[in-house]
Amino acid sequence: MVLKLFGSPVSTCTARVMACMEEIGLQYELVPVNLKTGEHQRPPHTDRNPFCQIPALQDGDLVLFESRVITRYLVRKYGKGTDLLKEKSFVESVAVDQWMEVEIQHFNGPISTIVFQHLFLPLLFGGHTDQNVVLLDVDKLGKVLDVYEARLSKTKFLAGDFYSLADLHHLPYAHYLLTSTPHGSLINSRPHVKAWWDAINSRPASKKVLAAMSS
Amino acid sequence: MVLKLFGSPVSTCTARVMACMEEIGLQYELVPVNLKTGEHQRPPHTDRNPFCQIPALQDGDLVLFESRVITRYLVRKYGKGTDLLKEKSFVESVAVDQWMEVEIQHFNGPISTIVFQHLFLPLLFGGHTDQNVVLLDVDKLGKVLDVYEARLSKTKFLAGDFYSLADLHHLPYAHYLLTSTPHGSLINSRPHVKAWWDAINSRPASKKVLAAMSS
Ligand SMILES: N[C@@H](CCC(=O)N[C@@H](CS)C(=O)NCC(=O)O)C(=O)O
Ligand SMILES: N[C@@H](CCC(=O)N[C@@H](CS)C(=O)NCC(=O)O)C(=O)O
Repeated sequence: MVLKLFGSPVSTCTARVMACMEEIGLQYELVPVNLKTGEHQRPPHTDRNPFCQIPALQDGDLVLFESRVITRYLVRKYGKGTDLLKEKSFVESVAVDQWMEVEIQHFNGPISTIVFQHLFLPLLFGGHTDQNVVLLDVDKLGKVLDVYEARLSKTKFLAGDFYSLADLHHLPYAHYLLTSTPHGSLINSRPHVKAWWDAINSRPASKKVLAAMSS
Repeated sequence: MVLKLFGSPVSTCTARVMACMEEIGLQYELVPVNLKTGEHQRPPHTDRNPFCQIPALQDGDLVLFESRVITRYLVRKYGKGTDLLKEKSFVESVAVDQWMEVEIQHFNGPISTIVFQHLFLPLLFGGHTDQNVVLLDVDKLGKVLDVYEARLSKTKFLAGDFYSLADLHHLPYAHYLLTSTPHGSLINSRPHVKAWWDAINSRPASKKVLAAMSS
């Protein structure tokens, strides 16, 4: 039974799941959901995700939504050979949980606003970037990345000296921040954050997904 | 070694952890952190949580922050006898992950704004409730609870017919919505959501925490 991922590689949340699948080396079918025609707001997609968003995963009878729930599931079911959740070490797996939650609670909010204002708002909705909104979130994201800089001066990756889902989850938005907004210096001006990003970004799995995001 | 929880029972995020500790039956010491005097923004608290928030947990040498990271840790380490993560069944544990993430991504945002506007803003900051902000989030939360209503017409709790962290994480904000805002009908008008809330709310562990929150 082939895994089906419903979404679009332009969508950061879909790309997050794709990066995980590439890391594990999974075969899957990407089934496009057209946001422009509102396909995500109608059945059958609303049966997959009642919150009307992409991505969703179908694995046989099981259907899941929320990108970070899907990545955790895929690693637990198919990625035992990877270190992406460090399941073999309780203490390290807790560190992965700690920094996955930091991505959700602190990083994702400001960076998604900056990217939305600079990329998706003009591109998809014909709107104009609101600089006041952006500056507030640039400030917030800077403070978050100060914490990352301190952390990454001690360990190579967020949860320790190993690449994990805690790092991987950052891939799509960090990529767009650097390629589609004028605020890439938030990453580039912090040496440990920059080295961390280079390490994430140069992985073969990441490269494949970043190519698909731009295609 | 006694577990130390740094925080305050009035804080929803601290109460979330306390509810988990009570469910497991853990002994712990609640160490107050005074937000009014800015204790959370100075060492030693900033060594516990570089994002300067409560709660934080200390368990011997291990220090953690983020309420939902702490609850997952406590269940995995001390709560094997509970069903709070359903670790013995892979499929059910994935359902718990699914609905824990829904709480984070869909429920927490609007309900925390409504509670902040009605309770904490006037109480702690001498501000006035902004009705426009509130109404927007009342609308959002209503849509989220429509999804819950549909789900809870099929299963007694969110992840299945068993109480889990996915339910427990809702306790503090749902309590404040009902007791400190005029928008309790968001819960009370939806029969399955109401029955679910009654089931959560009447648990001995919940009662203990709700009493501490109001003291
Ligand atoms: N927390 C969700 C967010 C999903 C999300 O925001 N998806 C966007 C595309 S990146 C979407 O479907 N947008 C359409 C909409 O919300 O109407 C996840 O991580 O999967
Ligand atoms: N996502 C965090 C949120 C923590 C949080 O917002 N804590 C509040 C009290 S409920 C706090 O410390 N506020 C003080 C501040 O942010 O300055 C968690 O779940 O632990």
